[in-house]
Amino acid sequence: MNTKKVAIIGASGYSGEVLVQLLLNHPHAELVAVTSRQNAGQTLAQVFPKFASHPKSKTLRFTDPNSGVLATQADVVFLALPHGVAAEYAVPLLNAGCTVIDLSADFRLKSPEIYKEFYAHEHPAPDLLQKAVYGLPEVHREDIKKSLLIASPGCYPTSILLPLIPLLKAGLIKPAGIIADSMSGVSGAGRKAELDYLFCECNESVRPYGVPKHRHLSEIEEQLSLAAKSKVIIQFTPHLIPVNRGILTTLYVAPTEHFSDAAGAAALSEKISAAYQSAYAHEPFVRLLEGKSLPDTKNVTGTNVCEIAWRLDSRTGRLIIMSAEDNLVKGASGQAVQSLNIVCGWPETAGLV
Amino acid sequence: MNTKKVAIIGASGYSGEVLVQLLLNHPHAELVAVTSRQNAGQTLAQVFPKFASHPKSKTLRFTDPNSGVLATQADVVFLALPHGVAAEYAVPLLNAGCTVIDLSADFRLKSPEIYKEFYAHEHPAPDLLQKAVYGLPEVHREDIKKSLLIASPGCYPTSILLPLIPLLKAGLIKPAGIIADSMSGVSGAGRKAELDYLFCECNESVRPYGVPKHRHLSEIEEQLSLAAKSKVIIQFTPHLIPVNRGILTTLYVAPTEHFSDAAGAAALSEKISAAYQSAYAHEPFVRLLEGKSLPDTKNVTGTNVCEIAWRLDSRTGRLIIMSAEDNLVKGASGQAVQSLNIVCGWPETAGLV
Amino acid sequence: MNTKKVAIIGASGYSGEVLVQLLLNHPHAELVAVTSRQNAGQTLAQVFPKFASHPKSKTLRFTDPNSGVLATQADVVFLALPHGVAAEYAVPLLNAGCTVIDLSADFRLKSPEIYKEFYAHEHPAPDLLQKAVYGLPEVHREDIKKSLLIASPGCYPTSILLPLIPLLKAGLIKPAGIIADSMSGVSGAGRKAELDYLFCECNESVRPYGVPKHRHLSEIEEQLSLAAKSKVIIQFTPHLIPVNRGILTTLYVAPTEHFSDAAGAAALSEKISAAYQSAYAHEPFVRLLEGKSLPDTKNVTGTNVCEIAWRLDSRTGRLIIMSAEDNLVKGASGQAVQSLNIVCGWPETAGLV
Amino acid sequence: MNTKKVAIIGASGYSGEVLVQLLLNHPHAELVAVTSRQNAGQTLAQVFPKFASHPKSKTLRFTDPNSGVLATQADVVFLALPHGVAAEYAVPLLNAGCTVIDLSADFRLKSPEIYKEFYAHEHPAPDLLQKAVYGLPEVHREDIKKSLLIASPGCYPTSILLPLIPLLKAGLIKPAGIIADSMSGVSGAGRKAELDYLFCECNESVRPYGVPKHRHLSEIEEQLSLAAKSKVIIQFTPHLIPVNRGILTTLYVAPTEHFSDAAGAAALSEKISAAYQSAYAHEPFVRLLEGKSLPDTKNVTGTNVCEIAWRLDSRTGRLIIMSAEDNLVKGASGQAVQSLNIVCGWPETAGLV
Repeated sequence: MNTKKVAIIGASGYSGEVLVQLLLNHPHAELVAVTSRQNAGQTLAQVFPKFASHPKSKTLRFTDPNSGVLATQADVVFLALPHGVAAEYAVPLLNAGCTVIDLSADFRLKSPEIYKEFYAHEHPAPDLLQKAVYGLPEVHREDIKKSLLIASPGCYPTSILLPLIPLLKAGLIKPAGIIADSMSGVSGAGRKAELDYLFCECNESVRPYGVPKHRHLSEIEEQLSLAAKSKVIIQFTPHLIPVNRGILTTLYVAPTEHFSDAAGAAALSEKISAAYQSAYAHEPFVRLLEGKSLPDTKNVTGTNVCEIAWRLDSRTGRLIIMSAEDNLVKGASGQAVQSLNIVCGWPETAGLV
Repeated sequence: MNTKKVAIIGASGYSGEVLVQLLLNHPHAELVAVTSRQNAGQTLAQVFPKFASHPKSKTLRFTDPNSGVLATQADVVFLALPHGVAAEYAVPLLNAGCTVIDLSADFRLKSPEIYKEFYAHEHPAPDLLQKAVYGLPEVHREDIKKSLLIASPGCYPTSILLPLIPLLKAGLIKPAGIIADSMSGVSGAGRKAELDYLFCECNESVRPYGVPKHRHLSEIEEQLSLAAKSKVIIQFTPHLIPVNRGILTTLYVAPTEHFSDAAGAAALSEKISAAYQSAYAHEPFVRLLEGKSLPDTKNVTGTNVCEIAWRLDSRTGRLIIMSAEDNLVKGASGQAVQSLNIVCGWPETAGLV
Repeated sequence: MNTKKVAIIGASGYSGEVLVQLLLNHPHAELVAVTSRQNAGQTLAQVFPKFASHPKSKTLRFTDPNSGVLATQADVVFLALPHGVAAEYAVPLLNAGCTVIDLSADFRLKSPEIYKEFYAHEHPAPDLLQKAVYGLPEVHREDIKKSLLIASPGCYPTSILLPLIPLLKAGLIKPAGIIADSMSGVSGAGRKAELDYLFCECNESVRPYGVPKHRHLSEIEEQLSLAAKSKVIIQFTPHLIPVNRGILTTLYVAPTEHFSDAAGAAALSEKISAAYQSAYAHEPFVRLLEGKSLPDTKNVTGTNVCEIAWRLDSRTGRLIIMSAEDNLVKGASGQAVQSLNIVCGWPETAGLV
Repeated sequence: MNTKKVAIIGASGYSGEVLVQLLLNHPHAELVAVTSRQNAGQTLAQVFPKFASHPKSKTLRFTDPNSGVLATQADVVFLALPHGVAAEYAVPLLNAGCTVIDLSADFRLKSPEIYKEFYAHEHPAPDLLQKAVYGLPEVHREDIKKSLLIASPGCYPTSILLPLIPLLKAGLIKPAGIIADSMSGVSGAGRKAELDYLFCECNESVRPYGVPKHRHLSEIEEQLSLAAKSKVIIQFTPHLIPVNRGILTTLYVAPTEHFSDAAGAAALSEKISAAYQSAYAHEPFVRLLEGKSLPDTKNVTGTNVCEIAWRLDSRTGRLIIMSAEDNLVKGASGQAVQSLNIVCGWPETAGLV
């Protein structure tokens, strides 16, 4: 199988670290460059002692992201940078013919106005927004195949979109009134030296934040609206919990079909089950739970899998859907590698578990 | 001030342990007896090494709860027993003239039918249901004062009822469609030797459970219905998170008054704020958060305080309310001591922080 | 009983926070001032939401430590500052007639040369070193009573000195070859915005640090030398473990008396037990464990207690001593309040559990 | 490359779970059977939801270990059973021609008397003790190659033996007076429904246990004695810390060569470094740390790597050696698979990271 040279810009954060891990061990990708301003000059082994047993860790050194020679070295470049900054790097790389997989929020939206509303600054490269593909393979696989600019989804959005899209497309749930309640591990806040994310501030603590208008709402609502073919506005509350990795999302939705007894619930259950089976039965990274099982982040941590389970509540007439994923893998770097596999024509599961 | 003799039946679980701690250091209560089948004969210091520096810990020994002499020793008896079992102990103690404060679910409901629906067995002492008072002091203080049988509320219910009741009473929120999403520390599962609650099964894990019909729904809905003066059915999803103590609840409710702009939101905000101030401004154990503050379990752990904050979301028209408490203190033993203080005529904050 | 006015300089770190908590609830001390450069102008409730239910939290505001009016306000001033800085504040406060209780390392040593060796800068006020008393009440209670400058011990030193000093004084263990292996919770590193202490860097991690010459060795060895009446050099290895609070120290020492069988061990055990009983039987904050019990940080967290247990190993001829304490209470702020109680003539346990 | 059929007896504990994970993804081994009394009849996916995305997880079912047909199905059988029980299974399997890799303590010692002293029962198959090879590949690789019965080392022993054996063999450290102080994650206690290992009993806790005579001392001392060619007795103290996985061991040893200044230390350092380089420079699973790096369990968790660093302390004349490993991988199942690779003639790193 053909091999591609890949580079990571901004490889010293948590999602950068997981990208390094996945790409060091990828059967078809060759990691040729990693950049980081603060770690320029150091080897992979020095910055990430856990990779020190990999032969490449002693020779591959971080370079300054401004060096600009990246475009000549790599076929595909991952951007693991803050929003706003990512777009600036994307432009010259695309011009030089690289494929860009961006893990930031910069290319996830179609509208520069909504970008400005949620990210509080003008979009740095609005022309590119129409060219970018939202890199959720289970939904946009065909578009990813031929894209040069892939906007890899956010962690919360992935845990919300995968459970909702098949049901919205099938018309089984109402687009109005959806509530998403999520809990995230602390790595979601990034490797930033801030008091709020110190061990003693997070351990033995659980707290909501970003209420009621978290930035990820913009991409969630755009993607849900596409699926529903109508404008969708949802309620979303993220919480910070003391685990390193993992997102658990509980969704509250209203089925379009009324049910009030066991027979009604059974009929509706069959349709929901069919919609999920049709969407995900052959997806390697979506796991539909059966029987009494409910999602648990410990069962997906370290993997690219998103677990989904659901329950109808005949007391309230609602459908409760629960999902679990590793925020750094399916919610970030694993999903980006999944897109890499697709865009390069490799088996979609290459280098992923 | 007068002193009362108190006893704890079932003192070896987590809420029993916190009860022991609070009562050992209480300025007016004298702990005269603790019972536990498996620890009978051992001193407090042997069962709970952390209390070993207290002078009484070397002399007070656990007895078998069947010994039956409790009624002659204690003025007030706490029951920290499983539901079903608690009621059996309550009957003879009440007959002997003791005041009973029950931490189980046995006397929290008025209807034996609903008890049976949710707890799957006949109520052992249905005649007592009408005599019992639901021991939520901020709501039923006057009734607690004159009661001989106090049903101390569950941990989840406390975190849900305190934020909702003032708004329901004031007619500011709709009784229909309420959603409560809660996260609880592992002590909520009790001190039980079960695989599910081993360190390695809970650490680095977050998971929902009891979906969609948790037992606590019965008392939550009964109390909300009383406040709303109409039948209330809610959606409730508990999650297990890796902390020892603490419950964080996020509530999604619909205001009765529509708002769609800043002016509307400001007007409604004032009413909500007034309702909360009127209900809780003078409550020692409810803390209304101001400004940008949101509840965080680490700020209430070890105290009898319930923190409450709320936000109006003009995008969705919803009100989001968040609360935090220590499931073993305000959610169990602290609240029970608060009722003890009330029923004994002591300052309500005696022995509590 | 008389009341004293107390102030805290540097009250926004973890030991400052515990000092605030203890002094807010102290029966005889009145907290009149707290300082913090970065929080100047804010109330206690704003900086520490967990204290927001205390009436004083809404009125007491942080001031800038340079304001200099402290000396006129307070009888006793606590310094919770970095070493080097603390000494600069101590001088004018002492000159103004305040009693100073310093939680930093600045006055714990008698020799400015050893200070410089371990802290890498000249001592800022060497004249004061002879006037300061090492604030370990179980060892220097009489000196503390009449001191105006109390150097409150470090967290690791307390966990090492309390177990060793009675045996050294009794001549039961050799001063040579002592090894102290300690594990500390992350709060010991202070509330500093550094990558190393982020949740994700500490959680699911255990690591040694400061090997082989940690700064606390200087005060440990000075105090042990005083007890042994000969120069003592020890081996000390600290480890960082993922708990908020708590230090567990395991000590390896050689008894002066040889033992090789059960009878020898029994005879020596009696002497060790007698030395500990003589030193600590009446100490409120040292708990000698009996039977099969071993120290566990969860039994001392939140209290001013240090637990001690020991075992003779007839296979190796060594004595193993284990201690547990809360690094922020007996290892810092609780011990400082214990000294406050002594110097003010109050009951030594006032405001402490 | 040839493929072998492998089976796991006792696959439902923590080391069994990691064995399943490693063998499901092994390039040359085919997992054909897993047994577990309590889970007989269930699929891998039902017992371990985290493996549910592996195709084999839906078809491979746990059988009862007594079924006895294992020997006809598998070339190599792993025993992940309690000591005492493992030996009973080993005998018929060996008789039937299987290779047995035992993760219990049953075949780690040469002497049935010492086995009885430490494990408190007669050895069930003393004849096999001489045939078994201690499965520490870095030390006994050649013997493992031709063995039919491999006793895979314990978790603590691995973390102690790897750092010590090269120095003992080179005569650089004294065999007398060695101290090993270890901290282990809770998975080391096994998946047992016992109160001591509940989340709330382990979280926010650190405690020593098994002092002073832990069972693992027997195999540690036997292997050290072999390396030193003289009887070695060591001091060993294990501690339980709140992480899922990981062992950190700190060793205190006396160099045979005296050093008291920088030059002496430099000369000795060179010899120690040479001994380690000679032993481990080409070992894929031992990582000698350089520069200022110290071991950290988070850098080895999930891998088969053991990290080692050391420091000479010129103040005490001692050598401090620190090691870190994943107790379930290099300390158990990974090491067992490493032996499988050796005995089958596969690349030693096959299926391991």
